[in-house]
Amino acid sequence: MKINGIDKKALWFEDDTLYLIDQRKLPYSLEIISARTVEEVASIIKTMAIRGAPAIGATAAYGMVIGKNNPEKTAETLKKTRPTAYDLFHAIEYMLDQINKDENSLTAANTYVQGIIDECKSIGIQGNTLLKDGMNILTHCNAGALATVDWGTALAPFRIAHQEGKKIFVYADETRPRLQGLLTSWELTQEGIPHAVIADNAAGYYMKNGDIDLVITGADRIARNGDFANKIGTYEKAVLAKENNIPFYVAAPRTTFDPMIQSGKEIIIEERDDAELILVNNHQIMPKQTPVKNPAFDVTPYRYVTGFITEKGIRKIM
Amino acid sequence: MKINGIDKKALWFEDDTLYLIDQRKLPYSLEIISARTVEEVASIIKTMAIRGAPAIGATAAYGMVIGKNNPEKTAETLKKTRPTAYDLFHAIEYMLDQINKDENSLTAANTYVQGIIDECKSIGIQGNTLLKDGMNILTHCNAGALATVDWGTALAPFRIAHQEGKKIFVYADETRPRLQGLLTSWELTQEGIPHAVIADNAAGYYMKNGDIDLVITGADRIARNGDFANKIGTYEKAVLAKENNIPFYVAAPRTTFDPMIQSGKEIIIEERDDAELILVNNHQIMPKQTPVKNPAFDVTPYRYVTGFITEKGIRKIM
Repeated sequence: MKINGIDKKALWFEDDTLYLIDQRKLPYSLEIISARTVEEVASIIKTMAIRGAPAIGATAAYGMVIGKNNPEKTAETLKKTRPTAYDLFHAIEYMLDQINKDENSLTAANTYVQGIIDECKSIGIQGNTLLKDGMNILTHCNAGALATVDWGTALAPFRIAHQEGKKIFVYADETRPRLQGLLTSWELTQEGIPHAVIADNAAGYYMKNGDIDLVITGADRIARNGDFANKIGTYEKAVLAKENNIPFYVAAPRTTFDPMIQSGKEIIIEERDDAELILVNNHQIMPKQTPVKNPAFDVTPYRYVTGFITEKGIRKIM
Repeated sequence: MKINGIDKKALWFEDDTLYLIDQRKLPYSLEIISARTVEEVASIIKTMAIRGAPAIGATAAYGMVIGKNNPEKTAETLKKTRPTAYDLFHAIEYMLDQINKDENSLTAANTYVQGIIDECKSIGIQGNTLLKDGMNILTHCNAGALATVDWGTALAPFRIAHQEGKKIFVYADETRPRLQGLLTSWELTQEGIPHAVIADNAAGYYMKNGDIDLVITGADRIARNGDFANKIGTYEKAVLAKENNIPFYVAAPRTTFDPMIQSGKEIIIEERDDAELILVNNHQIMPKQTPVKNPAFDVTPYRYVTGFITEKGIRKIM
């Protein structure tokens, strides 16, 4: 991804240290944080300094490098951080396997992360085939380079299309409660892709008015039957897309497909802290005593999905 | 409505002065503002110190009392403030008619406002017949006493049900961008009605999980064919309710039904300032340069409406 015109990644590992862009500080300021212990890595995942399933997987892979001398305990600590992100478990199991085989843990982690980057670029190339000049596309949350180390999943096709000179316009749901739409806006601004941030409530309005041609979101976990978990509100946008006959695509690499769960009913939904609704960017926007409920994800049934944009192509049923 | 246990109204007129609860300050602080000129009344409507179609109508009626010596000019000034609110035009036309008939303008305005209050209480009594003990109900925006001088439209049935001892639980959409769900929460807290504020994105999640039995919203303007305009996001919730076989009711007095427009296509949608998305409670929650779009209302087609809760009863087709 470009940051001020220079090629960068959301995270990297050097000198026994994991470095990451602190995504809680974006889009207000660009700050780099580091971790040298497993506890620091766990805290970074838990507090969402890094977010997005593939980036969480990459972070966990490097966490396993840091905790390689006690791999089982490291795995246990890291698995507890974000229960909805399948990539987390996938990365940890892969690393455990490599470490048990006496492979070099850093080489293994680098291979894993490069695999994610390559997959995301392929997703971009595949998804770009859906994008026509002049199209308006809606996306929800941030399934961008920040969420996937580089390229992104839902945003990767926009990057490729823009590089090819196609004129596209992106509607970015602000994505309450955490406003990850601002990260999408930050990435699109860096790439020079025209877009607008909208209240989540306005997505249906633009769909009904014929202003949106296509919806692309990411996914946190995809069941064998095609049901998928993603950021809260994804289900709403999927239902609205179907109601308005707008194609709805989910962009995700193979690591997000979980062969162990048959349907969305088995996906555990994480309830997060009330403070996420009440505070935005450390400003209190609701009275402290406001009673709130805060589910972080929802499950969208497969019947709302037009297709999955994967690194191997666009697929109807996985 | 109750405020700290005492019966109050959202606005009242005495000593040639209009007094109103400043709804921009709620739920953080309870402040009363006043207006003694037509320009002050127009500014109060425009800046949303008062909001909600019936309350805007009531404000405009008292604005006509203040500007009674130049009724045509007063009407022209007030009509420009909020183009989507039909009650505004209704109240102004009624007052012009009364003034032209040499009726006492204050008596006419008081009669108009008492009519709204009586209608809202009747809406509460009618809507209460839909509410069963143990029900969970979703509402969007604030169609409460603050929006209607007293009782509210969508919230009136909750007040009556609660007074009768029915146990109900209200899910209140926070309603970005302006978070009027916090006004709903403030009113429900004053009445002691159990509830939770949720991100607008979470309404679909709770509907799909079977946690919501009924949806009741207000309306800003209803066309002859039953299409209606209301706060942005209402259309989304209506589509989701239908998809999940949840009854969706619109609570509104006769003044919100506009016999002059045949369908929702004729309803003008107000685009409001970008700052509404970027600033919350005067805190900046997005970078200033974020490109945004901010439609304030949407139109929900009649096919999503189970029924209209009016002061005369619950009706299928108006």
